[in-house]
Amino acid sequence: MQDVRPATVRIAAGSGEMTGRTRRYEKRYSDLEGLFLDAGAFATLAATRGDEVAYHVDEFRPSGRAGDIIFGTSILQPGRIGNEFLFTRGHIHAISDRPEIYHCLSGHGVMLMELSDGTIEAAEMRPGDVVYVAPHWIHRSVNVGGEPLITLFCYPADAGQDYEIIAQAGGMRDLIVADGADGWKRVPNPRYVGRTARAR
Amino acid sequence: MQDVRPATVRIAAGSGEMTGRTRRYEKRYSDLEGLFLDAGAFATLAATRGDEVAYHVDEFRPSGRAGDIIFGTSILQPGRIGNEFLFTRGHIHAISDRPEIYHCLSGHGVMLMELSDGTIEAAEMRPGDVVYVAPHWIHRSVNVGGEPLITLFCYPADAGQDYEIIAQAGGMRDLIVADGADGWKRVPNPRYVGRTARAR
Repeated sequence: MQDVRPATVRIAAGSGEMTGRTRRYEKRYSDLEGLFLDAGAFATLAATRGDEVAYHVDEFRPSGRAGDIIFGTSILQPGRIGNEFLFTRGHIHAISDRPEIYHCLSGHGVMLMELSDGTIEAAEMRPGDVVYVAPHWIHRSVNVGGEPLITLFCYPADAGQDYEIIAQAGGMRDLIVADGADGWKRVPNPRYVGRTARAR
Repeated sequence: MQDVRPATVRIAAGSGEMTGRTRRYEKRYSDLEGLFLDAGAFATLAATRGDEVAYHVDEFRPSGRAGDIIFGTSILQPGRIGNEFLFTRGHIHAISDRPEIYHCLSGHGVMLMELSDGTIEAAEMRPGDVVYVAPHWIHRSVNVGGEPLITLFCYPADAGQDYEIIAQAGGMRDLIVADGADGWKRVPNPRYVGRTARAR
């Protein structure tokens, strides 16, 4: 493993852009079709801003080897689709007992986390907060503020991602929506059908 | 592993103190005897400030299991012992192929890294920089600035630490010293005897 060398990456204040990344991953609004409850509001957004980047990830991946770690920045734009705040697609790790940490660098977010049995937690994130997403928890970032939500993440390099677990259940159990008073709240997701067939 | 729960810790801006930590680890100046070249300067410091904390680490350790991760903050005070800048004792991971990342939150530092064969690298750290300490690299933080050096670290939970590898070689190959012009430079460590007996 001495072929993997030390490296320095720089995270730009304000933008979260990572100089020295090995990869950038972008999701445009048009890529998020079907994820939000208000299909009409989504169609309106997609028609005018579908090609804009909703979120992107800059990552540094030294290897995919067990025992190594991958880190990077996630930059999620602010906004709502109907009453729902913009979120990332979300995932569980393909090796599901792998955790992840998210260090909030700027913005105001919620880390929505759920176990296969529907147990759910929402951890609010402000700059300086670090959320430990425990093994086996599905997780998704939600931007509940008015500025980009920028987080630094780190996870075991062999973890992998399973993005289908959320779609197969009709989403996560709860939605993060505007509370009508400049804040956010959790409400049940009417499309959620559970994951009992996949429960561990 | 569903007994390990999600958690949020908060890193205080300015101090680096971590609310929600599972452990704090402190090193006082008196604990650092023998590590610096200028024994007279060290004795003077230890006589007056020996009980003060030279550095401390706040950590969140969910478990020590392979595949989990540990993170925390390291707060290293500024200062010099003779010409040498204050540093942490340093370590290699007990499972030596485990990496570590250090995200500089404030201050001005150098991550000094060395392989068993004496190959050495010094990565400068300013706020926003993330240093990836590759597997097999011995590493030590050095504060070359005038303020506390605060870093957020993250590493695989099964890594462990070996603190003896540096002492057994008479230190690291190079010292980080004042350059006489408000900066730092690397100079050979006259006490360094190498680690050939332990070379991999």
